[in-house]
Amino acid sequence: MAELSVMDKLVSLCKRRGFIFQSSEIYGGLGSVWDYGPLGVALKNNIKAAWWRAMVQAREDIEGLDAAILMHPEVWVASGHVAGFTDPLVDCRTCKGRFRADHLQGAACPRKPSKHPGEHTECDLTAARQFNLMFKTFMGPMEESAAVVYLRPETAQGIYVNYLNVLQSSRQKIPFGIAQIGKVFRNEITPGNFTFRTREFEQMEMQFFVTPGTDEEWFETWRGLRMEWHRSLGLAAEKLRWHQHGPEELAHYARAAYDIEYQFPFGWQEIEGIHNRTDFDLRRHQEHSGKKLEYFDQAANARYLPYIVETSVGADRVALTVLVDAYREETVAGETRVVLGFHPAVAPIKAAVLPLVKKDGMPERAQAVYQDVRRRWSAFYDDSGAIGRRYRRMDEAGTPFCITIDGETLSDGTVTLRDRDSMAQERVAADRVVEWLGSRIDG
Amino acid sequence: MAELSVMDKLVSLCKRRGFIFQSSEIYGGLGSVWDYGPLGVALKNNIKAAWWRAMVQAREDIEGLDAAILMHPEVWVASGHVAGFTDPLVDCRTCKGRFRADHLQGAACPRKPSKHPGEHTECDLTAARQFNLMFKTFMGPMEESAAVVYLRPETAQGIYVNYLNVLQSSRQKIPFGIAQIGKVFRNEITPGNFTFRTREFEQMEMQFFVTPGTDEEWFETWRGLRMEWHRSLGLAAEKLRWHQHGPEELAHYARAAYDIEYQFPFGWQEIEGIHNRTDFDLRRHQEHSGKKLEYFDQAANARYLPYIVETSVGADRVALTVLVDAYREETVAGETRVVLGFHPAVAPIKAAVLPLVKKDGMPERAQAVYQDVRRRWSAFYDDSGAIGRRYRRMDEAGTPFCITIDGETLSDGTVTLRDRDSMAQERVAADRVVEWLGSRIDG
Repeated sequence: MAELSVMDKLVSLCKRRGFIFQSSEIYGGLGSVWDYGPLGVALKNNIKAAWWRAMVQAREDIEGLDAAILMHPEVWVASGHVAGFTDPLVDCRTCKGRFRADHLQGAACPRKPSKHPGEHTECDLTAARQFNLMFKTFMGPMEESAAVVYLRPETAQGIYVNYLNVLQSSRQKIPFGIAQIGKVFRNEITPGNFTFRTREFEQMEMQFFVTPGTDEEWFETWRGLRMEWHRSLGLAAEKLRWHQHGPEELAHYARAAYDIEYQFPFGWQEIEGIHNRTDFDLRRHQEHSGKKLEYFDQAANARYLPYIVETSVGADRVALTVLVDAYREETVAGETRVVLGFHPAVAPIKAAVLPLVKKDGMPERAQAVYQDVRRRWSAFYDDSGAIGRRYRRMDEAGTPFCITIDGETLSDGTVTLRDRDSMAQERVAADRVVEWLGSRIDG
Repeated sequence: MAELSVMDKLVSLCKRRGFIFQSSEIYGGLGSVWDYGPLGVALKNNIKAAWWRAMVQAREDIEGLDAAILMHPEVWVASGHVAGFTDPLVDCRTCKGRFRADHLQGAACPRKPSKHPGEHTECDLTAARQFNLMFKTFMGPMEESAAVVYLRPETAQGIYVNYLNVLQSSRQKIPFGIAQIGKVFRNEITPGNFTFRTREFEQMEMQFFVTPGTDEEWFETWRGLRMEWHRSLGLAAEKLRWHQHGPEELAHYARAAYDIEYQFPFGWQEIEGIHNRTDFDLRRHQEHSGKKLEYFDQAANARYLPYIVETSVGADRVALTVLVDAYREETVAGETRVVLGFHPAVAPIKAAVLPLVKKDGMPERAQAVYQDVRRRWSAFYDDSGAIGRRYRRMDEAGTPFCITIDGETLSDGTVTLRDRDSMAQERVAADRVVEWLGSRIDG
């Protein structure tokens, strides 16, 4: 049997420990749609909360927003998505495969031996057609008379069309930002690589409105802040890099664009984009809606359309990056140990409490410690199986600390604190456990 | 001009203060779709966090889940939604109006004078047709060959199809529950009453899996817990009541059902449903998927399909209930004061810090207090306009406490703490403000 790839092993671990399940698995699954299990939803919530904290709660110049997924269809005409949010698609008349014309070198023809589409003599590719990635549906009773509406492919437009409402109700002044977390949908031709590219995903986008002329400086500021944020999640610095969009790569709305890329097992890939969108979006919405979207700058006594610096990142993609970055296998005493070495800030469970045996009063002592710990952090109580197996389960769940109640606890009131990464064990008085954990979890 | 209704005034306040905006307003709006502004997203996040805390974090017998909106279409065949998730629809051939056949008494014909559809001599209603409320879309490139998929109309099915995966990865034993918060979509024929009935909304559902025979007891337990939860948000007890579904009202899947109703300005309406769904759902999914969904009960050495007690509530509907319940107008010294009397647990801003004037060192003192307060709670700093106007703005935002820095602060180090509801003012030493707030906000 061929050795499993790291990604295959991660997919398997994610199912086993309840991070990520295939959607509708009992029905054979739905292509490239995934569900988050108990540990997965905790991980993703921790990531979203960290982003919201950094963007909205810690700053006075950014407001939160939660615009709906469904929007007026004219929004997507103005934004350029109806005309241009397309990928070029080719079909193979022979094998009936469907591929992105611009990704043929990354795809495999279903015929054997494995080659790229177009490389077998039998391959018969059609000319490329433009395929729009927006999902559409029908709103209002009766399909024939209903309005065609789209599932938004990005949250940004919800921010642009609401910007004056936010400005007026919050009494912010430029420069200020609006941040949003929410689901988006893209009917990708070739999704894949686990949760890296999926048809339904959650974006975390922030649009920062600035005076024209100050946009380049703000662009640099946001580049710095966003790279710092990814590092604060514990991602390895050497696996993060910048990719600057060249003139041919730049989207129609952008004057400058940098991606933060991460080195996945399947190559360097974008995890976040920082874009200088100029006044492109507000100008388009002003034209299409017929509503003035200018900002009146009291200090300068001037009216203008603000420029926008955007930071756009996928919550699912960050969760996958955190999982990939944390995954490691080690050989310990001749056995393989699988560890998710999460930073405590994102770990779904911060500490586990384990009575060595289910007798001699250990469960009672363990419960007391457990109740103390879970008042402050997400904690887990486990009293079943050999202690070694319980440690391994917590290693796989990415739990940074294990607290073991044993015979010594009964005699001297100390417990064993085990560090997931070093596996070092230390004895600490039971009534100092919270303090010990606090300095390591909350910094 | 006719006097505005309470609901009209609330809609206006929600826009003015940044709670809720109409979706795509600059394009004339999208029917019955709404966006949450800065205060609205904070309010809704507080409600969702309170639910998640009560359901998942405070309990060891409930696991979290975040299943995708898109699911395998067979899920909705098994659940009964493809065949039966319908409302009866009638058209009027004269006025082209479209109405729910079972809600004609609640609808108004567009002809004047205002009457119910069918009551004007010109009314010419069609026979009722069954209209399916699920939004559908097409997944995969090319509409003609793509799979028809639905936008889920409830989160519950995502829990049922994942229940064995959650059970196995979490090592829970029955009785246990799975909780989820997520967007759902229903193509309502007649949405309305602001955010009460919308086509896109967020559900908070918990499915509790129990041994058959224990379901009635668990049903009563969950009824009690859920009513208590609504009261913990500060909702007026006399505006909450139970409605038991009679034999004709019961859904096909339910053996027993109770709604928690709230007395809105537009009548008593459901805000939460508690249902005994028996083994209906798991049995259907077992039949349709061909996969065994039985639970092996080690203690009883028996295999069975668990019964399910469901609690289902809308986050948007709770947010609206909290807004309606909090809204009041009072006459104070001959002027009308509008107040949102939020419970501190859900208030978007817990405290505002207000320097009386922008000089004499007051802003510096105020900033010091503000930084202390915002380390623990969501706080707001406001130094512009007359102090009375600033109080009124905070009353409208539902901020429970205002902290004013004035001349006395400079001389004796005390600040004024103003209670939103009583408008009582109290002087407290600046360095005891956090403690004073703590006992009132965190209880």
